[in-house]
Amino acid sequence: MAGSAQPGQAEAEKRYDVFHTDCPARDMVDHVTSRWGIWVLISLRSNPLRFYELRESIQGISEKMLAQTLRTLVRDGLLWREVEPTTPPQVTYGLTEFGRDIGEPLTDLFDRITRRLPPYSAA
Amino acid sequence: MAGSAQPGQAEAEKRYDVFHTDCPARDMVDHVTSRWGIWVLISLRSNPLRFYELRESIQGISEKMLAQTLRTLVRDGLLWREVEPTTPPQVTYGLTEFGRDIGEPLTDLFDRITRRLPPYSAA
Repeated sequence: MAGSAQPGQAEAEKRYDVFHTDCPARDMVDHVTSRWGIWVLISLRSNPLRFYELRESIQGISEKMLAQTLRTLVRDGLLWREVEPTTPPQVTYGLTEFGRDIGEPLTDLFDRITRRLPPYSAA
Repeated sequence: MAGSAQPGQAEAEKRYDVFHTDCPARDMVDHVTSRWGIWVLISLRSNPLRFYELRESIQGISEKMLAQTLRTLVRDGLLWREVEPTTPPQVTYGLTEFGRDIGEPLTDLFDRITRRLPPYSAA
């Protein structure tokens, strides 16, 4: 890639060639910005939620896709997962410090997009 | 959704219920963070590029997927497209002001991820 504006960015580019398919940074960016990953990360920014609460807040997500997305984000170290040994067991998810750090630019992105779009009134 | 931390964010949430499938903000966030959209936006942040230059810089993207991604981002107002009437015609893509605004948090996201990952040396 051609030269960049920010020193931190140039440094990151030296370490990571994200335009290559075998780059681990590219994998993680793909997970974070996956079809559902971004909404899970944004949903959890205020407080931890249980599985069924996440499912209810993100319209259109299936149980299978939510489970798969949560598994990937836990594996990446962005979410923690806690199981309470009740019957049935309650599973809670929350942002790790890394997840919170990554959630900031995602919230910023979301805010910049909504500021530009014409006013929208929910049906 | 539960209460939020930032005033700008709370305001955006009042206007947009992005957790609903019919929300236009959700569509645009999905385009920007699509499998390839993020890499196109990051590739173009330094300078405009021709179609074949974009294809060469983003490893793993097919011509069809690149064309489709570019079409969506042009339609969303994030990219401009210029055709030079040469033979064959040269097509150049670049970031609009909106695209540049949206590219900032994406670059920030990418930088935060690469800072956390263990050092990586390209093969």
